[in-house]
Amino acid sequence: MVRVGVVGASGYAGGELVRLLLKHGKVDLTFATSRKNAGEYLFRVHPNLRGMTEMQFIDNDVSKITEMADLVLTAMPHGKSLGMISQLAASGLKVVDLSADFRLKNAADYETWYGFKHPDPELLAKFVYAIPELNRDEIAKTSLAASPGCMAITSILAMAPLFKQKEFPVDRNHVVVDAKIASSGAGGKPSLSTHFSERYGVIRPYKPVGHRHTGEIEQQLSWLGESKVTVSMSAHAINMVRGILSTCHVFYEGDIQNSTLWKIYRAQYGDEPFIRMIKDRKGPFRLPDPKVVIGSNFCDVGFELDERGHRIVAIGAIDNLLKGAAGNAVQVMNLMLGLDEKQGIYDAPLHPV
Amino acid sequence: MVRVGVVGASGYAGGELVRLLLKHGKVDLTFATSRKNAGEYLFRVHPNLRGMTEMQFIDNDVSKITEMADLVLTAMPHGKSLGMISQLAASGLKVVDLSADFRLKNAADYETWYGFKHPDPELLAKFVYAIPELNRDEIAKTSLAASPGCMAITSILAMAPLFKQKEFPVDRNHVVVDAKIASSGAGGKPSLSTHFSERYGVIRPYKPVGHRHTGEIEQQLSWLGESKVTVSMSAHAINMVRGILSTCHVFYEGDIQNSTLWKIYRAQYGDEPFIRMIKDRKGPFRLPDPKVVIGSNFCDVGFELDERGHRIVAIGAIDNLLKGAAGNAVQVMNLMLGLDEKQGIYDAPLHPV
Amino acid sequence: MVRVGVVGASGYAGGELVRLLLKHGKVDLTFATSRKNAGEYLFRVHPNLRGMTEMQFIDNDVSKITEMADLVLTAMPHGKSLGMISQLAASGLKVVDLSADFRLKNAADYETWYGFKHPDPELLAKFVYAIPELNRDEIAKTSLAASPGCMAITSILAMAPLFKQKEFPVDRNHVVVDAKIASSGAGGKPSLSTHFSERYGVIRPYKPVGHRHTGEIEQQLSWLGESKVTVSMSAHAINMVRGILSTCHVFYEGDIQNSTLWKIYRAQYGDEPFIRMIKDRKGPFRLPDPKVVIGSNFCDVGFELDERGHRIVAIGAIDNLLKGAAGNAVQVMNLMLGLDEKQGIYDAPLHPV
Amino acid sequence: MVRVGVVGASGYAGGELVRLLLKHGKVDLTFATSRKNAGEYLFRVHPNLRGMTEMQFIDNDVSKITEMADLVLTAMPHGKSLGMISQLAASGLKVVDLSADFRLKNAADYETWYGFKHPDPELLAKFVYAIPELNRDEIAKTSLAASPGCMAITSILAMAPLFKQKEFPVDRNHVVVDAKIASSGAGGKPSLSTHFSERYGVIRPYKPVGHRHTGEIEQQLSWLGESKVTVSMSAHAINMVRGILSTCHVFYEGDIQNSTLWKIYRAQYGDEPFIRMIKDRKGPFRLPDPKVVIGSNFCDVGFELDERGHRIVAIGAIDNLLKGAAGNAVQVMNLMLGLDEKQGIYDAPLHPV
Repeated sequence: MVRVGVVGASGYAGGELVRLLLKHGKVDLTFATSRKNAGEYLFRVHPNLRGMTEMQFIDNDVSKITEMADLVLTAMPHGKSLGMISQLAASGLKVVDLSADFRLKNAADYETWYGFKHPDPELLAKFVYAIPELNRDEIAKTSLAASPGCMAITSILAMAPLFKQKEFPVDRNHVVVDAKIASSGAGGKPSLSTHFSERYGVIRPYKPVGHRHTGEIEQQLSWLGESKVTVSMSAHAINMVRGILSTCHVFYEGDIQNSTLWKIYRAQYGDEPFIRMIKDRKGPFRLPDPKVVIGSNFCDVGFELDERGHRIVAIGAIDNLLKGAAGNAVQVMNLMLGLDEKQGIYDAPLHPV
Repeated sequence: MVRVGVVGASGYAGGELVRLLLKHGKVDLTFATSRKNAGEYLFRVHPNLRGMTEMQFIDNDVSKITEMADLVLTAMPHGKSLGMISQLAASGLKVVDLSADFRLKNAADYETWYGFKHPDPELLAKFVYAIPELNRDEIAKTSLAASPGCMAITSILAMAPLFKQKEFPVDRNHVVVDAKIASSGAGGKPSLSTHFSERYGVIRPYKPVGHRHTGEIEQQLSWLGESKVTVSMSAHAINMVRGILSTCHVFYEGDIQNSTLWKIYRAQYGDEPFIRMIKDRKGPFRLPDPKVVIGSNFCDVGFELDERGHRIVAIGAIDNLLKGAAGNAVQVMNLMLGLDEKQGIYDAPLHPV
Repeated sequence: MVRVGVVGASGYAGGELVRLLLKHGKVDLTFATSRKNAGEYLFRVHPNLRGMTEMQFIDNDVSKITEMADLVLTAMPHGKSLGMISQLAASGLKVVDLSADFRLKNAADYETWYGFKHPDPELLAKFVYAIPELNRDEIAKTSLAASPGCMAITSILAMAPLFKQKEFPVDRNHVVVDAKIASSGAGGKPSLSTHFSERYGVIRPYKPVGHRHTGEIEQQLSWLGESKVTVSMSAHAINMVRGILSTCHVFYEGDIQNSTLWKIYRAQYGDEPFIRMIKDRKGPFRLPDPKVVIGSNFCDVGFELDERGHRIVAIGAIDNLLKGAAGNAVQVMNLMLGLDEKQGIYDAPLHPV
Repeated sequence: MVRVGVVGASGYAGGELVRLLLKHGKVDLTFATSRKNAGEYLFRVHPNLRGMTEMQFIDNDVSKITEMADLVLTAMPHGKSLGMISQLAASGLKVVDLSADFRLKNAADYETWYGFKHPDPELLAKFVYAIPELNRDEIAKTSLAASPGCMAITSILAMAPLFKQKEFPVDRNHVVVDAKIASSGAGGKPSLSTHFSERYGVIRPYKPVGHRHTGEIEQQLSWLGESKVTVSMSAHAINMVRGILSTCHVFYEGDIQNSTLWKIYRAQYGDEPFIRMIKDRKGPFRLPDPKVVIGSNFCDVGFELDERGHRIVAIGAIDNLLKGAAGNAVQVMNLMLGLDEKQGIYDAPLHPV
């Protein structure tokens, strides 16, 4: 079996990577690193894993890591993994990186969105921005992949068919992405704004302008339609632990029918194992809602047509720690290793929960 | 003391009207009606009122009501109050209506947004659409007032200064209102989609297009700027019982400064007792968040400027049962009765809750 | 592969049975019945299953069922499955029943706890009350098993070692079980008391005395220690969708050490795959908490010793729809079919969620 | 008007004291202190107070405080207020203390429950443990009062009639108090265990034995019945921000009727303005539930009789920051100042919320 390891396994995405890889079936999880928790049992940090593994965190030692794995998944904080990944890549290891450090194609975009100069544009160029539903073949061939930001992948998958199609013109300058994200997206570090009494019951507009995932969304939508797109994104923290809903308001010109939209969405996603088109006439869940994807790698996608306002509302819903992080990363890993894309991650969501 | 009564007091807005009027100090609550609960103690339907009143619901008898009050607040389901209000108005009673039946100026708009022909356009014309912060004088003079829809008032107050000002042009065709509303806005009637196990933990895009409050927002923004506005609204049900956040994405032309926005918002709201401008540099609550208005009649308003996208994000937050219903209605009543506008409703929110 | 079916698959436990059986690997799910939803897609009722199966509900037709399966899991409302199960059992089918209809050994106890006379005491006598951790061998030999009530199994597993041991005397007359249960335990039928706005944020003492699971707990604890036990149980509805915490207050005589308790709990549960002893010195999860079992078949068990009050606090936590219903039932099925007990249900919980 | 001040006003109880005193009507809030927030606006720490006051925190300067107030309410962390209160008391100021430092009559009990030797037993003796419903006259005469712990007051009020009556014998050795408390009871300091993602959705048995409030409950129940009581308490953290439910399991000897219980509860609480007896036959709220006291100073009390188990389940529900802290303290202050006991705190709860 292929040996894989997780670098930066003490965060929430890292914990989910471990959970998925332990049950994967076709790879062997050989280690999980954490600088600050080295020597500690994984289940002390990830209490759900108690009884599932006696593994302990090891330190971030590149030479050891290189020996112990054929592929590593890196889930370190943004900006922290640059040097290490450079070494790992140099050793010929395959890498799936969950941080933002290798997502933007254009090095200058790091200054715009992250406020720093990317130190290794050459390495950056080698990374594939990896959404299997949109560039599966490219992923299968690369040895270096960047898994997208959680709100980015939700929004991109919700809108991709609109920006890729040629049937009608979309307004590329008034694209509003109104994203709602649960608390686990903000990580595990306590602060006043994440203190339960202060955080419970909010619907907090924490980043109405300038959210970093905007850059990824613009990059991918522009690439899909071969035409520059400007995205106006606002991010809200909501009263839940898992889940993202991205409501994308896309204006268009001319006349469109619902059937046209169905056609372009089906053409794009008809056979995708991890995309569910949700646009039903009955029941409480007629459109995507993160509640019914929790625990799965699904991205639920739906849309509504507002003929009066010349607007399409494209909606995506995911479990931010799965399709928004660990799940997509394992899906990408499966492709890179030539395995069945669904291996180890084709779980049904839990309901109700 | 002025005698007031509540018609349709068994719903959530009705319950809040009763709570506010019992402690009001300058009016005397003489009755509360409910067709289906006539004879029952109010505290059986509104368990919070136990110990506060021994009042029982009476039936909806127009002739009795006319004798027992000088002003009535009507909180019946949309479409149900038309006939009764017509009789109440004819008797000379002052009326503050919380339903949608008298909010739209143009009778034809009822066909667009509510799917029925308004049966009494003459009466419609006599009602004042009542947001004290925007048409205080008109309210003080009327005897018939329509209190706005909860998402409408939040969105209108968030954007009013932008559409009223003449300093820079706003794009009146790409106005996105992305509204998030807690469960009490949907009323007290059980159904599968409000069943706790199905409703908990959702962020449900229940009305991405065609929400009825769109009509009110367009009407008032068009009136404020004397120029037609088209609003693209989407409404989401969130994992809370009280509260609305309205995120309004307004595009503009040319260049604007933050200081310009401050100026126009201050000019509009500087002295308003129930508007708090929220745009702070410290703490978890730097922008409006319904969490810190719960229990009060405040509408918190804030904004962010997205120069890159030529967009202003205008944000409003309220307690949907207070500023979005009962609180605003009592504020309107106070004005109509010549009382201090704040009488009986100037409560601090609860925090944390 | 063994063919299995689910009778009564439209409830929450039924939905979880379907989810588990679809991914089981060693059995073939051949049908799922629902009287009221016959002909409907399963994913319309269980929205999480969309994309996982195109199966439709069939009606409850005993003759068909008998042909289509070797074992059935029945999850019908209490009191509704008696006649049908009698027919299924008569046909020689293996049955795992999730209702309460075959849990109590003594037919007279049905009058005490359920208020009806059990119509088939003979069949009752053939059913095994099935908690694998306590009577694994008996389960492996039976063809008729009753899976316990959700609060019963939690409480029994929490206290079993105390009532089975002979090292020190426990007070069998002052056993307080204070149970806390999430909403899904009450099923999927809407009502005023489950309406989101009324149900959210409660900690409702809905059954402080007389809860039906009391009978099961008394029966099993009395059996374990071969001495009659009287249980004083109170049940509370809490602000969550999944999970049960059972806090059991057990008084004792004489002196006990913590080490003695460790010894008797380890002796009982040391090798159990689905019991995790939780009694840690670090982190937020030092004792059982349903939060970290959600999505799994684990029962977490822990205890604290109150020497001052001569009391042991024994604590159990489960996911009520898994170890409290579908998970335990599949574990029981595995034993009855001679399969690995963990087959198809050895999932890690999700965290955080 | 009487001048009052709040010492230690940056915590949650302090914030609620300020909110109540600002709207009190018969006292004048002259200052609010906070060592770490001196100079900061109150609304920065208590965002609900924005728009209600421009007051800034001042430092804890005893000489200033002495000049600025006739009565102070102290809400400092346990163990921190001893020296300061000693000085304030020496100056002749009236003091209502919300900490635990002056609640226990017997200085030795501080070693048992708090692990320290009380430095000022003489001052301790001068403080009145203040629950108006149980010792109103004593409170009216004192100038030094200790407001009870939040879980203590809930449990004491739930059980007081049982321990005070002489009609039937209660078992004073098997009194189980199973308390459920929302997050605000743990204060405003962030930590891993209060981090939203870790704290949300828990029902955490954080103190199954040895909770400090046990001492207060034993002290007051023993005093009421003039006979020593041993209390077995367990405390659980629940998935809410405000509210306490205390489920008290009290065993008795002989036979009792429901009517007897009604009689003794009515005798005790029949005229109390802040006690509501909740034992209804209809609706979702038939017994106390914190959901319907939020925002008020009510303590809801109810009971159920378990004849089979010779047990009374006595239940209390409060808003932990009001009747469990600031509300009771202001009620006590009112009595000490000879004001109407309800002044400034007779608010209806909010519902639904």
